[in-house]
Amino acid sequence: MKSQTHPSIELSKKLGGKIEVNSKVKLTKDNLKILYTPGVAEVSRAVAKNKKLSKIYTIRKNTVAVISDGSAVLGLGNIGPEGALPVMEGKALLFKELGGVDAFPIVLATQDTEEIIKVVRALEPTFGGINLEDISAPRCFEIEERLKKELNIPVMHDDQHATAIVVLAGLINAVKVVGKEIGKIKVVISGVGAAGVATAKLLLKYGVKNIVMVDSQGIIYKGRGNMNPVKEELTKITNKEIKKGDLKEALLGADVFVGLSAPNIATEEDVRRMGKDAIIFAMSNPIPEIMPEEAKAGGARVIATGRSDYPNQINNVLVFPGIFRGVFDNDIRKITDQHKLAAAKAIAALVKNPKSGKIIPEALDSRVVKVVAGVFKK
Amino acid sequence: MKSQTHPSIELSKKLGGKIEVNSKVKLTKDNLKILYTPGVAEVSRAVAKNKKLSKIYTIRKNTVAVISDGSAVLGLGNIGPEGALPVMEGKALLFKELGGVDAFPIVLATQDTEEIIKVVRALEPTFGGINLEDISAPRCFEIEERLKKELNIPVMHDDQHATAIVVLAGLINAVKVVGKEIGKIKVVISGVGAAGVATAKLLLKYGVKNIVMVDSQGIIYKGRGNMNPVKEELTKITNKEIKKGDLKEALLGADVFVGLSAPNIATEEDVRRMGKDAIIFAMSNPIPEIMPEEAKAGGARVIATGRSDYPNQINNVLVFPGIFRGVFDNDIRKITDQHKLAAAKAIAALVKNPKSGKIIPEALDSRVVKVVAGVFKK
Repeated sequence: MKSQTHPSIELSKKLGGKIEVNSKVKLTKDNLKILYTPGVAEVSRAVAKNKKLSKIYTIRKNTVAVISDGSAVLGLGNIGPEGALPVMEGKALLFKELGGVDAFPIVLATQDTEEIIKVVRALEPTFGGINLEDISAPRCFEIEERLKKELNIPVMHDDQHATAIVVLAGLINAVKVVGKEIGKIKVVISGVGAAGVATAKLLLKYGVKNIVMVDSQGIIYKGRGNMNPVKEELTKITNKEIKKGDLKEALLGADVFVGLSAPNIATEEDVRRMGKDAIIFAMSNPIPEIMPEEAKAGGARVIATGRSDYPNQINNVLVFPGIFRGVFDNDIRKITDQHKLAAAKAIAALVKNPKSGKIIPEALDSRVVKVVAGVFKK
Repeated sequence: MKSQTHPSIELSKKLGGKIEVNSKVKLTKDNLKILYTPGVAEVSRAVAKNKKLSKIYTIRKNTVAVISDGSAVLGLGNIGPEGALPVMEGKALLFKELGGVDAFPIVLATQDTEEIIKVVRALEPTFGGINLEDISAPRCFEIEERLKKELNIPVMHDDQHATAIVVLAGLINAVKVVGKEIGKIKVVISGVGAAGVATAKLLLKYGVKNIVMVDSQGIIYKGRGNMNPVKEELTKITNKEIKKGDLKEALLGADVFVGLSAPNIATEEDVRRMGKDAIIFAMSNPIPEIMPEEAKAGGARVIATGRSDYPNQINNVLVFPGIFRGVFDNDIRKITDQHKLAAAKAIAALVKNPKSGKIIPEALDSRVVKVVAGVFKK
């Protein structure tokens, strides 16, 4: 009898990598001199003279690097670059299959902030865009900010912004379902890493006024201590009532719980003590902050997770292919907050009649890429 | 009437890059969880635990980086990374079409030796091998040497070694055609860059005893002055008679002229003053060191160039796809001199009855990849 192997390992063993690099034209004796020497020299000469032509004549036109240092991979943590590579290949595959974007995974043998910035800067002439992936907080914030400033191509840290966009999309519809006003809801976000921070900022930009953030040591507030500069900064824009305490205390009377943190940290009882018609986004994956069954038992009205086996899968696959599709189609240099807000609204609008069990399009809904890319039209 | 555009530019404009990244399997709702989360976590966990598995489960199994800093591109010189990209794309295309090797072009925004080494070291966990390309001498020597020492994957500077191998392959047959002994021929190599240096070294390892090297300032000899450390080193293994003077003087009585330098630097008269049945490899491309018609008028018996429109095209496309095909098929860590010598012999042996007009297989001869890859079999 064969030993049981996980189908993902089985497939990796068979494929030896999930993506491949192919020629767009078949090589013949006749086109060798057009595709390669001496003809290619004409293209090189033209591009060297006018570097902007590299966005028209070369792979830069449609190719994004999916770059990770393997420091914060899925729920696995700091597993290093080799371990991260299968995930980045998967991401590259989704980029192509969903968005028609050529994406190449790059995993780095360094986790030093300055070295990562240097390497990505050195790679700029190869790519049309940079998708940072699974880089741990707070390093990810500085790396993204610096690269956005120093490069002339768009840079996006997926874990931050694609997550923030898809959470906001879901929330726009969830709030409709429960009939509350976005400016009046109390939102608790558990997790102050890449996703939590970006989500808080985008929700504030959209019009949410009351957000309390909670990390493994409790509520974030000014002067709490044991906080990095990013958390310090957050005390200025969140938790205006200066609440203190743990997640349970934060959730008391809250309208929305967004979990971007760790498995099984909330209970049915916690949900019961939230406001009426609570909205629960429990996105730790594969094991959510609270299982949907428990959240429901606690009285939650809208429940979403990152999982495909429950309704309302909040998955950033709804975002990143469309973002770079739009970037490449419209030669965009910077992905702005306006783009992000518009993308969230566009995704939300695809659900015509939001209901408890339907606040977000399906993960592979082919309309999504089009509407997300559409927000970049000039 | 449309203005005339070079067909290579026309094609680049149409394609927007000659290669693309594709999924090896079609994405479906059912396999999403196998190709990506949560299933991919199993693969990542396994690879993180045993990094060697990345050579089996990921693109590292069959993917080489084609890395250039754009400092010595074709005959164009230092045109920078953007200008180099179309060439590297072409190389990647040839890798796949001829060798079934996935190759991804990486052009770097730095020409600093230490920075290049750092960046390539950081990229190691992504690739199964490194093909350095079009990096100028003498930096290319240090970069390759250091990377060979510091990385656990095979590193080859194509301009050096693929050229050396294909020149040796041609020479093996050319010497047969003229009925001379390899240990007795006098060889003059014009060009002491990447290709010239590696070719000299490989010919010496094969059994050539008498090589004189010439750069733009004349014959290389001990104490000449105006030489880099690599040229100094060459004075110990070449030019034992300590000849001095220019190319004309070097060629006097020589049996073989290998041009890896610049267009139109030799004349019919120079060839006439070489030994009987002279062998001319004039490989500057597209304009050779001497045009075949002139070499013939000077009495040369075997004439080869890098061009496809004359007989005997000495093209390193005969080498690099097979090298990395063999490396990946046999999990090779280092490409050795023994591999290189064996590859040259294998290519030469494909020409059953060498003649003046036929010393080397055709550039796209499909047998070549197989015999070159074959030398790596353990």
